[in-house]
This record gives sequence, structure tokens and C-alpha cells, in this order.
Amino acid sequence: MKTYLECIPCFFKQAIRAARLVTDDEELIKRLLDEVGVMLKEIPLDSKPPEMARLVYGKIKEITGNEDPYRELKKENIEKALSLYPALKSRVEDSRDRLLTAVRIAIAGNIMDFGVYSGFDIEREVEEVMSKDLAVCDYKDFRRCLDETDEILYIGDNAGEAVFDRVLIEELGKPVKYAVRGVPVINDATLKDAALAGIGEIATIISSGTSAPGTLLDDCSIEFKKILENSRLVISKGQGNYEGLSEEGYSIFFLLKVKCFVIAGDIGAREGDVILKGININP
Amino acid sequence: MKTYLECIPCFFKQAIRAARLVTDDEELIKRLLDEVGVMLKEIPLDSKPPEMARLVYGKIKEITGNEDPYRELKKENIEKALSLYPALKSRVEDSRDRLLTAVRIAIAGNIMDFGVYSGFDIEREVEEVMSKDLAVCDYKDFRRCLDETDEILYIGDNAGEAVFDRVLIEELGKPVKYAVRGVPVINDATLKDAALAGIGEIATIISSGTSAPGTLLDDCSIEFKKILENSRLVISKGQGNYEGLSEEGYSIFFLLKVKCFVIAGDIGAREGDVILKGININP
Repeated sequence: MKTYLECIPCFFKQAIRAARLVTDDEELIKRLLDEVGVMLKEIPLDSKPPEMARLVYGKIKEITGNEDPYRELKKENIEKALSLYPALKSRVEDSRDRLLTAVRIAIAGNIMDFGVYSGFDIEREVEEVMSKDLAVCDYKDFRRCLDETDEILYIGDNAGEAVFDRVLIEELGKPVKYAVRGVPVINDATLKDAALAGIGEIATIISSGTSAPGTLLDDCSIEFKKILENSRLVISKGQGNYEGLSEEGYSIFFLLKVKCFVIAGDIGAREGDVILKGININP
Repeated sequence: MKTYLECIPCFFKQAIRAARLVTDDEELIKRLLDEVGVMLKEIPLDSKPPEMARLVYGKIKEITGNEDPYRELKKENIEKALSLYPALKSRVEDSRDRLLTAVRIAIAGNIMDFGVYSGFDIEREVEEVMSKDLAVCDYKDFRRCLDETDEILYIGDNAGEAVFDRVLIEELGKPVKYAVRGVPVINDATLKDAALAGIGEIATIISSGTSAPGTLLDDCSIEFKKILENSRLVISKGQGNYEGLSEEGYSIFFLLKVKCFVIAGDIGAREGDVILKGININP
């Protein structure tokens, strides 16, 4: 997905939000915004939003001197999600369609995103996503592709969300490689976060190598790109991965909550919608 | 009022909104945002938001080549407001406290602001402001100061709003000088707009001389500053004038709707509140 003009004010909002977590020096944050301002002209509109976001979050690290502003919040989110895990499992057990219930749970976890929100109510989100229709629902194709594949590449998004992904992975019944970011960026899952979330017990955790808050292929490792190319079923979580991968030509199922009007416009859905969308899926 | 960090993303949003009115050339708007980005570092946090806004809207004119992106919308707003004028007058006639009703009407008109909104429902706003309490209400002081003065300086804000100001001016019962911006900026009233709104029939329209969307004294004419210094009663409409004048030491009654959380924090009110606030009023 290309960068829309409306992404630009959002980058500045994100920079303020992240910087405020690690400093209350307003002048320092102003300097950060000044530098983001100067960087703007280096990013053409045909680049993907995670490219700009990578530069912005890199600048946050550089100017605040903090490599991981969301460290504490990630830890809290993972703990919170783990505390919900038994109840999420029960929901799957009690459901008529275990896989679909697990898909919904995985999408509900996508709310745990500090790139977009400054806070969220995860319990309420679970209730909401369980009870509403998926605005795009390529579930039949998803089910078929799952039957036809031997293994799955699952591209994770936020740290706390990984616990919700675990619930889905446990229903897939096939070997899964779970990809995370190469370094901390926003509250996205890293190797360590995914391990804390318990993913290591049910899947192989790998790094995509990217330092962007999304799967930017130019920034990913050769190993990851090889795995992506050879995967018959790819599950991609969240907006950042959608932004990075939606136009790369791969066959991918995107699971996400539509959290901003820019993505809504691009996908052809509405803000707040929850989505299971297959792109380039063979019939 | 100083510039808050959160004003900065808002400037970019405003630039996009204004530029989209006059061009659909996304690359041109991107270039505008790039240049606003570079300008950021010239504006320290202790400057007032209208100073940055003046530069941003100046840049919009320069890059799009359009001196008045809001010309048509201003015209529409004034016409719409004029169509409501008889009903607004009837409300005053039918009320127990004509002055207070007219104050509320003037505040309701403050919604007609394209610096903050991309659209609004003026009829609904009138109903809402007529029925809710003013969150800050220095009406008693206002009434007393009105009794004690011989003439009034009334600093206008948005073009369509001027019709609502007219309703209040007609209840003041004293000679009024109505100040407008020196040049078109956002949808703020200029000499021509105020005249179209009928202000010339009941007050003397003057220019403050500023090219900012707010009363920036450094940018105002000597004549205007002299009038301000000599005025015993000053009424200031809207956020931009508040931002420019709140810390200048003058005795002023601010009438406005609180339209963003930054102003809300500065005033000590909530977003959506309507306000009649006296600053530096002699007891």
C-alpha cells in the first residue's frame, strides 16, 4: 500500500506518543518532530507507510536514546493477554466452528496496537469481535488453503496479540513458522516477546529481519524472503503487514482490524471493521 | 497561548484539508507538506499557534497559487447564516434574558470553523448551545463591564459566524468596532466577508491587519493595537483569537466553543464546552 497524505500527520502523532513514554522534555520532543519534518521530503508518496514509520521510530530511538520505548507496555500487554488465554481457549472449545472462533480471537488481539491507540479495552474488544460479522470474510478459501498446505507462515504483529495468535495457531493443526520484527519497533512482537507469549511452545519463531513496524520486503532478511516465497499458506496480521505486503503479489490471508480511515479506503471497508481477506488466492 | 506538541500534527491536517479544496494534485500537496515539515524547526514551542498557522496557510497560498482556498465555502456559510438570521432574532425576542441568549447564539456561530472541522451542522449546533450550560460563564462581569463602557471592540473569527455576532452586537446597545483579519486566511472573516454578513449596518468594520488565523499582536497594525489598548470592553471570538491574546495582559471576554483537547487543557475545560470567559477583568 502506498503512503497517503493523511498518513503524514499520523506519523507526527505517533512520534509524540512514543516519545512521551520515555521523556517529559518537551523541547527534546519538539526537536524530534523538527527532524521528522525535515525527513518528510525523503519519503515519496509511492513508498509504503512502514518505510516512513521505520525512519520515524528510528529517529525516536536516536533522539531519546531509548531503544524500546514500549518495552514495559509490551510486557504488561503480554501478561494481560496470558491471563485471558484460558478463557479464550474455552471459547474455542465451546464453539461450533473452532477454526472460525480462533480466527476471530486472533483478530480481536489486533486491537493491542500502540501505533494507532494510546489505550484499549481488550476484554471489550474480544466481546465485540466475537459478536460481529467479518466485513470481508474469505473463510471458505482460508479453510481450503489450510487443508491443502503442509505448513504455514504466520506473520505476527503486536506483542500482546501474539497470545491471541497462539489460540489460532493451535487450531491450524499444521507446522507453523511465526515471524516477528528484527528489532523492537512500536509495540510489535520481537523474538523475545513471542517467546514470552508462549509461541515457542507451538510454533517456530523466526525473525523477518525488518526494523519497520510492518513487513517491508526490502528490509527483510534473505532467509525470511525465501520462506515467504516457498509458503503455500501465509497468514498476515494487522495493518503494518498489510501495508507492506498487499501489493507484493504473494498469496496471503490478511487478518486485521481496520483502525484508520486510510486503510479503510484502501481495503474498501470501514473503520472498525474486522477482516479476513485473501489476496492472490488460487481458486 | 503557547504551541503544544499536539498542535503540530494538526497543522499538517489543516494543510491537507485546505490544499484539497483547490487541487487534487497529490504530489503538489506532498510538496506542501514537505515544506511545512522543513519550516517546523523555525517555530519554537513558546510561539503562539497562529504564528505557525500563518506560515502554514501562507505556504498553502504560495504552493497552490490560490490566495483564498475557502472563498466559496465562506460565501456559502454567510448565505446559510443569513438564512437563519430571522429565526435567531426571534429567539432573542422570545427570551427572558435577551443578552444571554444573544451571547449563546454568538458562541453557536463559532462552530463554522474550517480550521478545525471539515463540515458542521449549524442548525444542530444552535440547538445544542441554546440548551446546554456554559462551562465557564462570566456573564455577571460581562454584563457589568458592558454597563460601564461607552464602546466595544469585538474581534470576529469565522466568516459565517459574523452573522451570529451581528445578533449579539444588536443587543449590546453601544457603538461597536468589529475587527477582522487583514487578508483571507482559512475561513476567517475579512472586511468583505463581514460586510456581506451585514456587520457594516450595525458596527464599524476594521481590519486588525494580521494575516494569521488569530489575533497575533506582532502582526497587527498600529491602528488596531491602539484601539485594543484604549478599549474598555473587548469581546474576542474563537480559538485563534484566544491563542493570540490570552497571555497579552489585556482585559478581554473570550466567547468560544472548545474545539480541541489542546485548548481544553489550556482553558481548563472539556472539548465541546462553550465558554464566556473573562481574563484580567477588573472586579
